[in-house]
Parts: sequence; C-alpha cells; structure tokens
Amino acid sequence: MPTPPYSAIDAVLQQVDAGFDHSRDRLFALLRIPSISAQPAHRADCVQAAEWWREQLTGLGFRAQVRPTAGHPVVVAHHSGRDDYRGPHVLFYAHYDVQPVDPLELWHSPPFDPQLVDGPHGKRFVARGAVDDKGQSMMFLEALRAWHTAGGGIPARITVLIEGEEEVGSPNLEPFVAANKDELASDLALISDTGMWNVDTPAITTRLRGMLYAEVTLKAANRDLHSGLFGGSALNPINALTRILGELKDDTGRIQLPGFYDRVKPISNAQRAQWDALGFDEAAFLGGIGLSVPSGERGYSALERLWARPTADINGIWGGYTGEGSKTVIPSEASAKVSFRLVSDQDPDEVFDQFQRFVAERLPKDASVSFKSHSGSPAIEANTDTPWVHAAQAALREEYGREPLLMGSGGSIPVVNSLRRVLGIDSLLVGFSLDDDQVHSPNEKFEQRCFHHGIRTHARLLAKFAGG
Amino acid sequence: MPTPPYSAIDAVLQQVDAGFDHSRDRLFALLRIPSISAQPAHRADCVQAAEWWREQLTGLGFRAQVRPTAGHPVVVAHHSGRDDYRGPHVLFYAHYDVQPVDPLELWHSPPFDPQLVDGPHGKRFVARGAVDDKGQSMMFLEALRAWHTAGGGIPARITVLIEGEEEVGSPNLEPFVAANKDELASDLALISDTGMWNVDTPAITTRLRGMLYAEVTLKAANRDLHSGLFGGSALNPINALTRILGELKDDTGRIQLPGFYDRVKPISNAQRAQWDALGFDEAAFLGGIGLSVPSGERGYSALERLWARPTADINGIWGGYTGEGSKTVIPSEASAKVSFRLVSDQDPDEVFDQFQRFVAERLPKDASVSFKSHSGSPAIEANTDTPWVHAAQAALREEYGREPLLMGSGGSIPVVNSLRRVLGIDSLLVGFSLDDDQVHSPNEKFEQRCFHHGIRTHARLLAKFAGG
Repeated sequence: MPTPPYSAIDAVLQQVDAGFDHSRDRLFALLRIPSISAQPAHRADCVQAAEWWREQLTGLGFRAQVRPTAGHPVVVAHHSGRDDYRGPHVLFYAHYDVQPVDPLELWHSPPFDPQLVDGPHGKRFVARGAVDDKGQSMMFLEALRAWHTAGGGIPARITVLIEGEEEVGSPNLEPFVAANKDELASDLALISDTGMWNVDTPAITTRLRGMLYAEVTLKAANRDLHSGLFGGSALNPINALTRILGELKDDTGRIQLPGFYDRVKPISNAQRAQWDALGFDEAAFLGGIGLSVPSGERGYSALERLWARPTADINGIWGGYTGEGSKTVIPSEASAKVSFRLVSDQDPDEVFDQFQRFVAERLPKDASVSFKSHSGSPAIEANTDTPWVHAAQAALREEYGREPLLMGSGGSIPVVNSLRRVLGIDSLLVGFSLDDDQVHSPNEKFEQRCFHHGIRTHARLLAKFAGG
Repeated sequence: MPTPPYSAIDAVLQQVDAGFDHSRDRLFALLRIPSISAQPAHRADCVQAAEWWREQLTGLGFRAQVRPTAGHPVVVAHHSGRDDYRGPHVLFYAHYDVQPVDPLELWHSPPFDPQLVDGPHGKRFVARGAVDDKGQSMMFLEALRAWHTAGGGIPARITVLIEGEEEVGSPNLEPFVAANKDELASDLALISDTGMWNVDTPAITTRLRGMLYAEVTLKAANRDLHSGLFGGSALNPINALTRILGELKDDTGRIQLPGFYDRVKPISNAQRAQWDALGFDEAAFLGGIGLSVPSGERGYSALERLWARPTADINGIWGGYTGEGSKTVIPSEASAKVSFRLVSDQDPDEVFDQFQRFVAERLPKDASVSFKSHSGSPAIEANTDTPWVHAAQAALREEYGREPLLMGSGGSIPVVNSLRRVLGIDSLLVGFSLDDDQVHSPNEKFEQRCFHHGIRTHARLLAKFAGG
C-alpha cells in the first residue's frame, strides 16, 4: 500500500528548495521565447512556446498535445494522478503568450533576455512575461516536477490547458473548450494569474467584477450643418450626447440607469469589517496616479468601490471637428463608448437594456440612436466556503505563516466566465504577482521570493487536494 | 455745368440691358480662372484672377494695382468720381478666390467651365464661384461699366478692395487694411456677398451674429488607467466633461454661463412683428435638413433664434479610445471645441471669461483644465436709419417694385468686423444669392435674373449715392 501522498510533502518541499536554481533556469528558457500573440511575426515563437510546454509536461508523465485553433495553438495535457487519488479533478489554466514590448526604448534590458537583478525584496527576474503568465504558470509546473522527482509521482488528477491568445482577448478559447467539453470536464479550475495583497501577505481572489461594454451613436440632421446658419434651431447631437451622458451619475456618484442597482447585493457588515481591517492606503493608491480624492460613489471605501460596487465609465467619445483650429460645424452625429463594471447578480444583457432605456428616455425629439454591445460578462463572487478554497487557504497559511486574504479584483478575467459557462466549474485564483510588477509595461518583473513561495504553495496545494 | 449724375440713370439702365450678354460673357471669363485659394497648385490662378480685376478696373479709369501680401495678392483700385460728387466715399469689398470643388464627381459639368442652363426661375449660371463671390462682385463691376459707357463716367468716389483669401479665413486681410489705413479711409463699405429673402424679394442684411470659439481640455490622472483596476475611484475626465458641458443649457434651452445674457438686448415688439410678418416657413427650414422640431431656446421663433439670440454649440469632442471594438481605458484627458454665437453687445472676451468660469465652477477636485480661444468677434447690428441704408432701400424698391427686407444672418462675416475695427466704418450688405445656390457645394449656381437685377440695383445705388 502506497504512502498517502500528503505525507511526502516535506520531501517535496526540500526538492523544491534544492532544485530552485534549475527551476529558475527553466523559467528563463521559456522567457527567451518571444511568444507575442498580437504580432504575426511571432507566430512561430508562439508555436515554439506551446511545444516547450508539451515537452515539459510529457517529461512529467502527462499525455500532452499541441492542438490547433483558428489562431495560436492550445496545449492540452492529462495526468490521472496516483491510483489512490480521491480528490478533485483539477483543470490548470494558464497562457503562454505575452504582451508586445513597445516602447522598447524604455526597457533597461532586452525584454526577451531575462535578467536576475537586485531589488528591495531581494533578487527579481526582469523580462516580458516574467510574471504574466510565464512566471506564474511555471510555479505550478515546478511543483509538479518536485512531486514527480521526490514525492512518488504526480499526486492528483490534473488536466492542463494552456492557451496562446489570452493577451488578445482569447477569441478561440471558449470555442475550443466547448468543442472539447467532455475531455476538459473537471471539478475546478486552478488559475495563477492574479496578485498578492503585498509581498508578505498571500491572497486568494474570490470576486471579479463583470462588464457590459456598449457603444452609442446619436444622429440628428441629415448632414453636417453650418453653426451660423442653423445654430439655435438645429439639434446638435454632441450637445445632446453630453447632456445625456452627463446624467449617468448623480451628485453622489450613484448610477442613474433604471433598475441598475436592483441586483446589486449590499455589502455585509462582516465583509465591510474584513476589508476595513486590511488598512488599504487610499491616499497612496490615488497618489500613485496623480489624484488626491476618490471620485466615486459616496459612502463606500476605495476597496468597496473597487471590489463590490458597479461603475459607469465613458471610455471614449468623438464627434464633429477634432483637428487643429476651428470649424463652425454642427455635426450630424456623435458617439461614445461606455462601459459598466458589474457586481453581484447584475446581468450584462439587462444592463445593456437599461442603458438603452436610459438614453431613449432622454433622447431629444428628432434624434435617432443606435447601440452596439462589444462584450458582456457577469461578475464572479465565488463561494468561499468550499473544500478547494479551504485547501488553498491552508496551503498559503502554512507557507507564509499568516492568514491569506480573500480579495476582490476590480477587473474581469474572461476565462473564468468561459469555464463557468461551458464547463460549469468555478475557478480558484491563487496568484503571486505584486502591484508594482509592471505587467504589460516595460521592465516587467517577478520577485524571486514570490516565485519560490509560489512553487512551494502549489506543491502544498496538491497535497491538500490529495487529502493532506 | 454737367448734368447731375442721377439724371443719367435711365440711360445707364438701358445700357445694362443692352450690354447684358457681354456682362455675362465677362463673368464666364472670370469663372474660367480656377482661383482656389486653399490649394497651393492654384496659386498662379489666384494671381491671374487678381490681374483680371486690375485690368477691368484700369479699363474703367481706376488707378488699380495688384498688391502683395503674405498670401494671395489683394487688388486695390481708386476712382475719385465726377468732380461734382458730394456723396460718400464708398469702399467696395469683394473676393476673387473660390472654394475647392471636391467632391468633383457630384458636379454635373466641370466646375470651371461655366454653363448656362434652364431652371425654375429661367436661365442660371452653373460654376464654382458663380455666385460666391465672382457673380456677386461682377454685378458691381458691370454697373460701373454701364455708368462709364452711358452715364458720363464713374459717378462716385470709390475704392475697390478685392482679396484672394476669403475662403481660407482672410488671414492677411486685416493686417493689409491696417498697413494701408489712410489709403483705404472711406465712409462706408459696400459688400455683395449675402442673400435675398427669395427670388422676388430683395433684402439688406443688417444684423450679423458674433462668435467666441473656444477649446477646453480636462485632465485627471497622470496617465491612462485600466477601468477595471481604477474604475469607481479614479476621476474619469470624459465623464466629467460631459457632465459639465451637458449643463451648458437648461431644459428651456437657456445658456447657463454666468452673466451670459447681461448684454443681450430683448427683441422689441416692433422687430418681432416685422419678422413675424415675413412668414418664415420653419417646417420647411428644418425639413430640409431632416429635422421636425426646433431644438433651441423656448419662447422664440426660428428667425428670432437665428438672428437675435445667442447659441452654445459643441462643434467637436474627443477623448479616450475611439477605434474599432473596445478598450477599457480611463483616459487621462478629454477635450471639446465649443462656440457661442453672440448678439447685441455681448463681448467675446467677456464670454470667454464666462465660459472659463462656468467650467471652473463645475470642475471636480483633482481635475485640471486649460482653455484656448480660437476666434472672437462681436455681433453687428447696423443702424438702419442711415442715408446709406435708405439709399439701398430706395434702389432695391425701385428695381424690384417692392419693399426690401431688413434681414439678419445667423453667421458672421469677419471682414465686416475688420473694417469696423480698423477703418471705423460700417458695411452695407446688399446681396442677391438665394438659399438654394449651393454655395461651397457641387453645382454652385447663380440665377441670371438675380445677376441682371443686381447689376441694375448697383447702378441705381450709385445714382442714389450721388444724390438721385
């Protein structure tokens, strides 16, 4: 009878530490592949990154394939775990593609020549993809390797899904998942693409806001008009659009769409107390972007507004003459892109309807309006009272010696919605990036300390899934 | 003792009629010169049009010169009139340049190959510049010619000023006038660049609106932000700008700048009655541009709003992401171009101050704002009880057999302001274009009937100035 896998954890952690330099070397090898998904010139590099993953996973006993899509390929790999494994079937999702590197002149070293440099938290890795998502995803691979080498084999039943188009909006991922639904069936997804509270405080991200992104165009006269000959009688669609969009929020920052808050759950006192206890430094948060006062909804803290309250932001607006100097035109139309970050049970389709109603109710006679919806996804508020969240909390607690935080994120992670929609599974978001990691920017970095703790945490988490 | 000049008017009018075909031929010759001021390729054509005017005026006994400017040249010509002339020194202003012809494919005949075609009012001339301003200015020249041929010579003291940059905003005209102030000193300006009420009803334009054209830029964060990570707390300058500009007018269309109406004179009952009597067809006016209800200030008719009430129009707006699809950005800044048509004694500098104050009073904390003023000119409300207006009224009344209207115009004619500012003289605006003349558009036309009456009217007006 084999040893229960969790009892091997000490040996596995020792192996992580002993093999750490090699783990870093392998990460650096992956970082040297310029797998920029947005740029056709890097198509072959994306294939090379996928092949790299396939080889690594094959080497650990996975049945691994590089599978085509209409865009960059997807890596799919399976391992059934130890025979006595009774834990959940884990779908590990990551992406091998990275953002473009422009502006190149702002980099202190070539973006695909990873550097080990000193920083306030010790050594750090500098390269495009250092953290997003090569560094984060490699922590899981190296945890698997330590189990393979020193723990008696891969302990859990695992499917790996690594795409190459996350940085361009994952246009082919959901179709791929849907087409391979049975093969990818699993109990939960594990994703390492989120952040810590700070370098000493680990976190699990359990809340993500949803989004409705819409475009609105107002039309008035049948052609551009001279403002001298028609000004004062002809409807100006820019004036009308600013008047309508200027009413999106009232003086307290409350969004004025009819029924917009009907499905927004109030923040519980317990939740509020928990977030207040985090001691979030709002002044530093705003100061970093050159602001001093929060502009949002009154009566909420910055964290509450970010994690648990919806927004209405105009992301773009255009109409009339926008060149140098002056042109006395009353244009025939004006447009704006408006997005709503959603929380709780807000439904993007319903919000799209509400937005159309909001505009229609304020539409001047003689104006016509048209709408486009660019994307919509509901918010995620994961149940935090599940065995998987408890397992992750335990793994982080043991690794860091302190209680991990349950965090929200103001943004959306579309794959979480896709996996829920198509496979019906929740995602466990355990990530190790820091706010200053320069994700998507020049000189992206990842703290070596975070990378090391991350491998050990993933090793522990596998033991927890196996019952440790 | 010579015959009083006005007694020659019958002979002069007979000469206008007898020589009419030649007048049209000369207009067509001028129309064949493609003097497009906006296009460097037509620089030589502009010089040719100036030279053409110099030759014509020299032939009538004027001391005429083509004078250089930093742009296209100006034609200046002087005639002292008959020795016994005791009337006003008249400055005739016109422009020899024309608008570009794009889109060329919409023309039914080549724009610089003038055509004589049939229309509902008889023959019409079709060509670029047919009315604006070659046709209108040639009426004065042909009236002078008739006096020269059959009236005993040019009857009045006249200075002619013909520029070549009206269609590009007259950048060099005011400096030229200022530099030649003494030479151009005169008692009134006569300008033929405006319209009739309709083909049977002549008009004198006595009111022009002024303008203040400003640009406003709001800045918030020190860089573009991700709307997921900052939405709800970071000030969005597009939201802020729409909120501010959305308040430019209240629900009744009244402009909300502090003190904006302080210098706006109420419309007198007499004035109101006079305009009401015109029977302006508001439905047709709006229907022509695809609208059905006036959007302007409540409590005023369309003509009152156009001629005697100020406006606030956003002529352009831009900020954030305006390309295809979606980008979840909170931009660092947003801008708009806003113009105010002015009436009565409104002062453009004061209105610029009021606009800055209006924005500043609504500016969210953390936003900074900057302004640019692109142009400003006060409204013109000419005194209609002057000998020159009476002379023009009489000339039009005798020619058309009905009372001419005193009209307003919603637009501005910058040269009128320049001549008032630099030379201290008022302008008498007597023009013969119709609303459907397609000014600045393909297939620009001028009614032969208007051209003919216009020559005769100018001939009569010269007699009036001479005391007839």
